Amino acid sequence: MLTARVRAAYARIEAVDRPEIWISLRPQSEVETEARALQARLDAGEHLPLAGQLLAVKGNIDVAGLPTTAGCPSYAYEPEEDAAVVARLRAAGVLVLGTTNLDQFATGLVGTRSPYGAVRNAHDPARISGGSSSGSAVAVALGIADLALGTDTAGSGRVPAAFNGIVGLKPTKGSVSTHGVVPACASLDCVTVFARTVNEAEDALDHMTSSARYTVPRTPGPWRIAIASPEHLGEMDEGWQQAYDATVRRLRSAGAEIRTLDLTPYTEAAAMLYEGAFVAERYTAVGAFVEKGTPDLDPTVAAIITRARDVPAHQLFTDQEKLAVLRTRAFKELHDSDALLLPTTPTHPTLAQVAADPFATNARLGRFTNSTNLFGMTALAIPAGRVNGLPFGVMLLGRRHSEEHLARIADSLPQEVHLAVVGAHLTGQPLNHQLLTLGATLDHTTTTSPHYRLHALNTTPPKPGLVHVGEGGAAIETEVWRLTPESLGHFLSALPRPMTLGRVELADGTQITGFLCEPAALENAEDITSYGGWRSYLNKR
Amino acid sequence: MLTARVRAAYARIEAVDRPEIWISLRPQSEVETEARALQARLDAGEHLPLAGQLLAVKGNIDVAGLPTTAGCPSYAYEPEEDAAVVARLRAAGVLVLGTTNLDQFATGLVGTRSPYGAVRNAHDPARISGGSSSGSAVAVALGIADLALGTDTAGSGRVPAAFNGIVGLKPTKGSVSTHGVVPACASLDCVTVFARTVNEAEDALDHMTSSARYTVPRTPGPWRIAIASPEHLGEMDEGWQQAYDATVRRLRSAGAEIRTLDLTPYTEAAAMLYEGAFVAERYTAVGAFVEKGTPDLDPTVAAIITRARDVPAHQLFTDQEKLAVLRTRAFKELHDSDALLLPTTPTHPTLAQVAADPFATNARLGRFTNSTNLFGMTALAIPAGRVNGLPFGVMLLGRRHSEEHLARIADSLPQEVHLAVVGAHLTGQPLNHQLLTLGATLDHTTTTSPHYRLHALNTTPPKPGLVHVGEGGAAIETEVWRLTPESLGHFLSALPRPMTLGRVELADGTQITGFLCEPAALENAEDITSYGGWRSYLNKR
Repeated sequence: MLTARVRAAYARIEAVDRPEIWISLRPQSEVETEARALQARLDAGEHLPLAGQLLAVKGNIDVAGLPTTAGCPSYAYEPEEDAAVVARLRAAGVLVLGTTNLDQFATGLVGTRSPYGAVRNAHDPARISGGSSSGSAVAVALGIADLALGTDTAGSGRVPAAFNGIVGLKPTKGSVSTHGVVPACASLDCVTVFARTVNEAEDALDHMTSSARYTVPRTPGPWRIAIASPEHLGEMDEGWQQAYDATVRRLRSAGAEIRTLDLTPYTEAAAMLYEGAFVAERYTAVGAFVEKGTPDLDPTVAAIITRARDVPAHQLFTDQEKLAVLRTRAFKELHDSDALLLPTTPTHPTLAQVAADPFATNARLGRFTNSTNLFGMTALAIPAGRVNGLPFGVMLLGRRHSEEHLARIADSLPQEVHLAVVGAHLTGQPLNHQLLTLGATLDHTTTTSPHYRLHALNTTPPKPGLVHVGEGGAAIETEVWRLTPESLGHFLSALPRPMTLGRVELADGTQITGFLCEPAALENAEDITSYGGWRSYLNKR
Repeated sequence: MLTARVRAAYARIEAVDRPEIWISLRPQSEVETEARALQARLDAGEHLPLAGQLLAVKGNIDVAGLPTTAGCPSYAYEPEEDAAVVARLRAAGVLVLGTTNLDQFATGLVGTRSPYGAVRNAHDPARISGGSSSGSAVAVALGIADLALGTDTAGSGRVPAAFNGIVGLKPTKGSVSTHGVVPACASLDCVTVFARTVNEAEDALDHMTSSARYTVPRTPGPWRIAIASPEHLGEMDEGWQQAYDATVRRLRSAGAEIRTLDLTPYTEAAAMLYEGAFVAERYTAVGAFVEKGTPDLDPTVAAIITRARDVPAHQLFTDQEKLAVLRTRAFKELHDSDALLLPTTPTHPTLAQVAADPFATNARLGRFTNSTNLFGMTALAIPAGRVNGLPFGVMLLGRRHSEEHLARIADSLPQEVHLAVVGAHLTGQPLNHQLLTLGATLDHTTTTSPHYRLHALNTTPPKPGLVHVGEGGAAIETEVWRLTPESLGHFLSALPRPMTLGRVELADGTQITGFLCEPAALENAEDITSYGGWRSYLNKR
């Protein structure tokens, strides 16, 4: 059975046609042989808690038998043994598929700084995957790997999780060994794990740590969640503030106590990571190599690391003191909150935007993530729906050893469901406010499958009647909204005749809850299918 | 009554004639006025736990009304308020006498690097006081102040304690506020206290910390004391290894479990404090000022700080990583020991020796102290008798928040008593081995007061008979040995006739236990007083 999973993964690798994900992909036959050996051990009764989980490993983490490149072919070496964390996961039964692409020397949050090619986003190839753990995140998001290892210094284990709609768990610094990992900033680096669900990420973490996981105690009571005000979050992509607010509402509806903090110490510390003296640690790690000037160095990465050579140590002491003050302020702001909820990034650039301004675009991405490791915090990045069709991500930041709390907070978030609207509830239409009041957010705009007819009903205000037909239908303009089941229930219980909610088939073939109507309402109703949608009908009639 | 103490202190200041102790000595009348006000509060029933204790404050700690110089007149500023620690001690009732001399910017362990003059040792003006808290230590050692504040980065709160025969307590970093203290290396600096006894230092510390003192738990059982082997201690002054060994024997006799550790990680880390990148933090603190090149800069201090400007930050990261490895090794060596016992320094130089080679002499002094703050350890420096007439000091090093344990270990050390020997027990004489077997150490060589006569008794081996006479006596060569009361008891119980032990008056007027004899033994005994001592008699007869 394990071999079937391996075969499916390699078929998927071929199907998605994203060669830039991998730096060293193992031959399928080799992994299949390993799967068979693993299956034999399982059949013999051995306990392998992660048996057959397929693992992608970021290219700055040693995997015996594959070169460790850190995204730079001329830097590559052949490790004699697995990194400690890889060895632990293998002992628990994972199968390694290969090593993945990354921003060179893990220096970047974009996923484009690699001679192995820019890694394209799993959901939109014109957008960046995020980095530096770019290939790892996309391998999980595209359903190739079950788990992937990343590293996180500035946010590399969280930004690509957010951009690709998956979970990124950045455990407490020191709890996962960095033995066999190419350092970026050795004093800050953490090994992270990507998965499609929080529980899978947690299960993996159990086998990544060298000792039993410790959970910091908390005073009982509802989850206490700190959030940031729009002024402190600053400029974000269109619709992101609303998506963040919706997540806050979901937490509140799950019983959490919400309090707003002053984000300033967090964003000020974030700005210090590259602007200040801390960047010099990257020179400590690979400066001597970068000075050689091999042609496969990424020019942006090489510039950052070379400049770091001349930072004086007395400046570092100044920054360390300044950071200590900011950290004290940050934890005072956090007070007794269990977690700080933030958008993972403020923006999701395209590949073209990054190419046009590689430094500033990257710097902006780290606004919320950069301070986490400087403050010694723990983080869990989770998907929080979609905005304009692309994943939107938030992260929960907590104190050291708060992984367990962060995971339970994420679990407490009510799952959202979709609602297809085609008439008076569309954006700008008279009943749209009902959705907004319930905390719903616009996920994306699409059409139904081409099997519907639309009618103008004799209601006040005027409403459309959507009817599925076997033949002679058309695709009708549809907005897909996202809201909690609870909100959907409230919405349904207040729905007036003759409207009904049922299954609506969308252009991509999926079926979601959406507006239909009672058959009787269609009598004497005008067929407006030819307009292609409610708004066109209103505009053109 | 408090005013009488103040008057006595100022009389003592005049009597000792050591003007270099002080940078700013407050007018006697001002302190007396303060003492009267304090007395009135006491008389009114107020509880002031340190009422009337006289405090000297190192010149890099703010005292409102006195300039803070840090040992550099051109750097001086007039603080508007007391440093936090001074304010706390004053609130507990101490009277501040003034601010004391120091190695400029607390950069040195010698006590000579100051435009206010080199601070001479309390017991031998040709020797250094040790630094950088030089004036503070000597003020306590000479009986002027009851307590004195120092600071300790490399050992400045311990080295001068050792050289002047007093107690120096360096608490856990962060437990005493450094608000209002001129930084040396801000991330390492600790405010320390000098006193003549451990209990006085502890009492003061209770009022220096901003919260209740926390004590790290320990597993029950006898004290577990780690020590270093002679090879690891390296070259020390004559007699110091024996004095250290004697302290170990005292601890063992008090029931402590003694184990030898590998001192290498401690001495390797110590060497990094000035040789490595950490020194750059001194540039962070006062580099901009030192660059001005004012004429009152100490040339050695200015050279150290100016050179620190060019240390690159990437080197600091390398050193921090190296230090982390050494720290792990050091604590592994310490294992479950409650403390590490070390000589405070390996040597006690003269002023002339320091002047001849200011850098190397200073560096050697920090061999055992430099690593303490780098490792985040706590320390208690205590006197451990005398060698060749000068104080010998040891220190107990422990984990964070081990102050209480270190103090109790110091308390457990059996107090030593003195024994004056004048004959067969002198160094090199036939019965000297009896003293060595009992763990006695030679304290110093002196003579009796000029009121004794010496006789050669008819014993085997030949022994001297010392007799106190009203007139016509002479000063007789005497060795003063130091041993525990228990050892002295063993010694006495094995003493054969006609020898006795009684009070012997020394050249300095003090009376200690020493060899006398039964009157009957003097019959027919040759009067050898004119030789001036037993060894002269043996050599010349």
